[in-house]
This record gives sequence, C-alpha cells and structure tokens, in this order.
Amino acid sequence: RVDGKRLWDALMTLAEIGATPKGGNCRLALTEEDRAGRELVTGWLEAAGLTLRVDEIGNIFARRPGRNDSLPPVATGSHIDTQPTGGKFDGCYGVLAGLEVMRVLDERGIETKAPLEVVIWTNEEGSRFVPVMMGSGVHAGLIPLEKALAATDRDGDSVAASLARTGYAGDVPVGSHDFGAYFEAHIEQGPVLEQEEITIGAVTGSLGLHWFDVVVSGQEAHAGPTPMPYRRDALKTACALVSDILTLADAYQPNGRVTCGEFNVHPNSRNVIPGQVRFSVDLRHLEPAVLAEMHDQLKALCLKHHAANQSDKQRMDIELIEVQHIPPTPFAPELIEMVRSASQELELSYRDMETGAGHDAVQIAGINPVAMIFVPCEDGISHNESENAEPSDLEDGANVLLLAMLKRAGI
Amino acid sequence: RVDGKRLWDALMTLAEIGATPKGGNCRLALTEEDRAGRELVTGWLEAAGLTLRVDEIGNIFARRPGRNDSLPPVATGSHIDTQPTGGKFDGCYGVLAGLEVMRVLDERGIETKAPLEVVIWTNEEGSRFVPVMMGSGVHAGLIPLEKALAATDRDGDSVAASLARTGYAGDVPVGSHDFGAYFEAHIEQGPVLEQEEITIGAVTGSLGLHWFDVVVSGQEAHAGPTPMPYRRDALKTACALVSDILTLADAYQPNGRVTCGEFNVHPNSRNVIPGQVRFSVDLRHLEPAVLAEMHDQLKALCLKHHAANQSDKQRMDIELIEVQHIPPTPFAPELIEMVRSASQELELSYRDMETGAGHDAVQIAGINPVAMIFVPCEDGISHNESENAEPSDLEDGANVLLLAMLKRAGI
Ligand SMILES: NC(=O)NCCC(=O)O
Ligand SMILES: NC(=O)NCCC(=O)O
Repeated sequence: RVDGKRLWDALMTLAEIGATPKGGNCRLALTEEDRAGRELVTGWLEAAGLTLRVDEIGNIFARRPGRNDSLPPVATGSHIDTQPTGGKFDGCYGVLAGLEVMRVLDERGIETKAPLEVVIWTNEEGSRFVPVMMGSGVHAGLIPLEKALAATDRDGDSVAASLARTGYAGDVPVGSHDFGAYFEAHIEQGPVLEQEEITIGAVTGSLGLHWFDVVVSGQEAHAGPTPMPYRRDALKTACALVSDILTLADAYQPNGRVTCGEFNVHPNSRNVIPGQVRFSVDLRHLEPAVLAEMHDQLKALCLKHHAANQSDKQRMDIELIEVQHIPPTPFAPELIEMVRSASQELELSYRDMETGAGHDAVQIAGINPVAMIFVPCEDGISHNESENAEPSDLEDGANVLLLAMLKRAGI
Repeated sequence: RVDGKRLWDALMTLAEIGATPKGGNCRLALTEEDRAGRELVTGWLEAAGLTLRVDEIGNIFARRPGRNDSLPPVATGSHIDTQPTGGKFDGCYGVLAGLEVMRVLDERGIETKAPLEVVIWTNEEGSRFVPVMMGSGVHAGLIPLEKALAATDRDGDSVAASLARTGYAGDVPVGSHDFGAYFEAHIEQGPVLEQEEITIGAVTGSLGLHWFDVVVSGQEAHAGPTPMPYRRDALKTACALVSDILTLADAYQPNGRVTCGEFNVHPNSRNVIPGQVRFSVDLRHLEPAVLAEMHDQLKALCLKHHAANQSDKQRMDIELIEVQHIPPTPFAPELIEMVRSASQELELSYRDMETGAGHDAVQIAGINPVAMIFVPCEDGISHNESENAEPSDLEDGANVLLLAMLKRAGI
C-alpha cells in the first residue's frame, strides 16, 4: 500500500514552485518554474533508484529495471506544467502517484518482471505552446518533432529555445521505445464522481477534441469622430459570432462541449474601434460523426456572419483556422479491466466513465495499450487556482495504480 | 506664409521614431520612443529660438518672447504620443504646425506683442495611461497631479517612474501660467471635411466623453469535462452585454457614439472557460443630457445581464466602474471667429463643426479661451497606421494657425 501522507507532502512541495496568490499554480511549460519543478521531481525519482533519460522534446523517462529488462516497460506518468492560473493536482497527481508507487516498491525491495517507468511529458496543457499534449503526441508519432520544436508562445519564444534554456533538450530520439502498458492517474476535472460519491473512475476513452482559431478583421478607427454607420468594428462581429458559437452546444447535450477560451482584441485601446479579433474555439464530443457535424455548424456560422457584413462600408473578413484535431479515443479493454479489478480488490467504489479532458494517455493510446484512473476533485473544478482533492481519494487512486501496474508487470 | 514642404518633412522625420511595419507609429506616452520624439522636436524648437520649460507632469512649454513679455502667451500645441498602432498626424501635426509658425516668424524676424508658446502635452492618447489628455488635464487643474503620477500601465509601470526614466520629470509647478489664447491644429479624424470637400473646420466645441470599465466575473473551469449547464462563462455574458451596449448607440444617431475598444479575458487560455472579462466602454454625445441618458442605459444593461444570471449554478457578477468624464465643451466664440476670418483671408473653404475626439484643447477650454483648426484626413480614418493627409491641406491649416496667432498676439 502507498503512503498517502508522503504523496500529499510531495504534491504540496511541488506546488510551492510557481505558487499563485489564490493558492494555485502557474508553471507554464518550459519556463523557469517548470524547470525548477522538473529538478525537484527528478531528484526524488533518482533517490528512489530510478535512472533518467530525456528525449529530444524534453520528455523525461525514469526507469526501474525489471527481472527481464528486455520486456517493454509498464509505464505511468503525466505532466507537471500547469495552466496560467492552474491548480496543484492536474498532471502533478499522475506523476507523483507514479513516484509514490516507486518509493513503496523501493522500500519493500519488490522486483517486478517487466521494467517500470515514470514519465513526465512536456507541455501537456497547450496553454503556452500549441499543439496541446505535445510531448506525448511527439512520442506517439502524432505530432512531427520539427513542428513541435518550432511552436512559439505569444512573445515569439520557441519550444526549441525554451528546451535549450531550461536544459531539457535531451538526446534520446523521440519515440525510441514502446510501453507494455501505460496507466495514468488523474483528478476527474469534472463533477461526476463527487456527485455520485464514487472513488474511482475507470476511464474507457476520451471525447474527441477539435480546435480552431477564428480571425475577424474589420478596420480600426477613432472611437470619437467615426460615425456609427461607417464602423467596421471587429469586436461587434466577434461578440455576435461567439454568442452563436456557444449556443451551438445546446443541440448536442449532454455530450457536446463548446468553449471559447482565448480572445484577443487588436489594438486593444480604449478609444480605438477594434480592427481585429482573434479567438479560439474548442469543440468536444464522444462520437466522431457528431464532432464532424459540430465542425460543419461552426463553418456555417462563420460564413453566415461573414455574409451578413459584406456591404462596402461594413465589410468584415472572417477566417476559420484549424489548430488541432484529436479524434475520440477508446482505451485498452484489458487494462480498463485491471483498473476495475484493482478497485474491487481494494473495496473501493468505482464506475466506468469517459474523460472530457485530453490527457497524455490519449496520445499514447495511438501506439500502446492505455488506461486511466480518475479520482474525484472538489466541485468538479479544474484549470482553476482553487482546484482541490481529498488526500484519501488521492491515496486510493495511487493504490489502484500500484496494483494495476504490479498486475501488468508481474512480480 | 508657412513652408509646407518643411512642415511635411518634419512630420515624416518624427514618424521615423517608433515607425510600424504598416506605415504607422507606435510611440506610447513616456516610452523610450516618446523620449526620442521629444528630444527631436525640442531640438528643433530651440533651434528656432524658443526657450524650454518642463513641468512636473512632463508638459513641455517652448516660449518665444513678446515685446510685452508680461502679457499671457498666445499658445498652440498638441501631443506627440501615439496609439499602439497610430498614425503620423494625430497630435504631431498640431505640434509641428506650431513649430513651423515659429520657424517662419524667426526667419522673418517678426516680433509679436504678446509672447508665443508651443506646448507638447504629456500622454494625450490615454492608451498607455488613463486618464486620457493627462498633461493638459493636470495643467488645467482637472486632474490632480498625484493621481496622474500614480497612474500605471498594464505592466504596473507608473507615470512618475516613466517621467523619471525618460528625463521629463520637470520642476516647473503644474498650472503655473495662463494662456491669453490656445489654438490647436489637428486632422479631423472623421470623414466630414473630406466628403464635403472643405479645407478648414472651425471647431466650435467637443462631444462629451464618458468612460467606463465593465468587469464580468464568473468561474474558470476546464473546457473538456465541465458540462455546459455547470458553466459560469464570463466570455459568454460579456459578449451578450457588449452586443447590447453597442446597439444602444442606435437610439442616439447621428450624434451618439458607443465603443468598446479594450477587452481582456482571464485567464485567456484555449482550454479554460473564461473566469473574468474586463472591457472598456466609451460613450460620447454633444448634449450633456443625452450623454447622461446613455449612461443610464448602460447601467440598466449591466443590471439586466446581472439579473439574467443569478441562478446558483450560473451566477455572474457585473461591475460598472467609471473611469473618466469630460462633459461636452464649447470653445471661445471670439477665437472661433478668428479661425473663420483667417480662412476667409486665405480664400480657403471652411465650416463650423464639432470634434468627436477629445483634444488637449478641450481640457484647456476649462481655464482659457480656446479654438481648434481642423484639416481633412484620408477616408476620415485615424487611430490607424494608414492615417493620411494631403500636404496642401496641412499647409493651409498651418497658415490659418499663423494668421490666427498673429491676430491674437498682435504685431
Ligand atoms: N488534463 C488536462 O487538463 N488536459 C489539457 C488538455 C485538454 O484541453 O483537454
Ligand atoms: N485626438 C485624439 O485622438 N484624442 C484621444 C482622446 C479621445 O479618445 O478622444
């Protein structure tokens, strides 16, 4: 059994790096804070007897040898980068639950048949750099390494430069090895487990995700002397379009999600009619056909608003740019069953569920068998500084992880 | 008569400082670019025989002595700070037309009875620091010096620190002297003169301006797992509210203006439901009573959207914050008449008009007699990198300024 207090302490210690005033974390991918977090956690992993390797996109693989070291490793992990105003648990829990499993095995001197690995994936959040779930996506061959290295943040800083600066431009070729299995423990980030008072979610797959940028271009002009009929106000059109896009979700309940999370106005000056607005659209659904239908609706809305603004004086250009597409992804039935049976063995309540959030596991599912272990989080709130979870739930989830990994790796 | 080519060359030389790729200018108030612009222009003013003084808010007064130096000076001027994507003429034309008048008088050895002054006002644009028209407002006693010095930009940098850094924290007490008259030449920044093919606008007063911030607060949460009915999406409410606020202008045509120019989403991350939006509202009208009515409508809209979102799960807080209020301001009839008669003398077409933009002259009108001279600008476009004006119109406006100043100062 894992040590729940030690796991909690590790979470709280990591959360001191990039701590925010409201009790959350800002440890954006490949920043100085992320570097410091990586140093802390890799130090712990080495102290538990694991050996580190870093690949070209900065993914860290910490390995514990097995009796038969030529077997593919049974892996676990997640990410320690956060949202700009993120919480202490998203990602960190998966990595530190993996660490805790290793610490227990080390203390007890337990050897497994297959080797084990704890992985820290680079830039899962996609907040500083797009594509999201970058490290795992590159590892799985879904994102070309060159594309990932060339991605830039809003200030033009690239992934390649940030890897070099933080010392995590590793030399292991990406995608160099397969996993025998990949388990990822995570807070649910939604309200279902808490509301149903269930401890463990056995995740059967993920909603598909389709990301876009919309660029609305009018003409900037002075807020004072420019008569209303002469205005080509990009904010006016963008607000009407966003209202329509968010309403689009109504027809796809309960499984459809539509979010506009980023929204930037140019030149963003109080007395200038906005000339351009760029905003993001995040569409999610469990069924590929429905996700495609939502995409069609989005295109139709952009065309509608474009057509509505074609008089010479009020012309407005609307561009829809695809940013990323991750289809709905089923997980591996035999591993999902291991999560269920480990929960049963530990006498924990559990249920099957999908994940609405993308996770590194979703990318890995493209190449290796994958399952996830969800635990409840307070009010279902995540990507928020007030993200919270019960120490006992986190302990229970880590015990499920321990049993499932041992079952798969063999003792 | 002024030298139109020299005036144009001065405008183009100043426009090299903070030049933007699309042919505009970014010389935000009290930045390094603004400092460089001030050095250039004050060098020219000194070379034309004027003496410089800088007050505590960084306003620069360049003085040309009169025969009777105890008379209050007849002043002109404007500002050389710009919008983030501003043009080459807004503000700069007023300052450099004043310089050109001084150069002509210097060449011809013409002495005036009253002294003359060219003033460069600090932070007219209000884009980096609010209040807008700051230097002239402090000079006129409408904005307390302490409040202005304490104003900060989005990065927390203050006016006081920026004045010190750029070397423009002067020692002349603010508001230390009155003007016998203040004339300001400016591009119209609207389409009227161009459309009516008139060269000179004799400005009779300004629209009132009432500025606000609106803060919409919901709750940030994860875009993937958070079901639509649980969302407290601040962007959704903000977009609906902005649409209503902009529509408010319809009832107040042709003299009402409503603009939302600044719009900032928090945390502004692609996969986070926005927790907070802060946007600006700029209301303008010529009649104080109507401007007050528009303000009432704005309050009512904020209350309406607040009330529409009070169920526990979708609660949204909406706060309306007043930022600045400049009532409609009439200019001085005897000076307006001088602008008309100078135009007549020069055989230029002219008409009376109001200014929709605020100007330093509007602040000075609170304490001294003021008039403005407008010239056409291309397509009425301003606060835009493509802002443009005809050299001959700029020359004509400067000649009107020359005659009006001489008329008022006496030869
Ligand atoms: N778990 C998580 O927060 N992932 C970010 C990717 C997503 O937007 O779903
Ligand atoms: N002239 C000018 O652009 N002034 C800025 C103040 C305003 O917003 O009217």
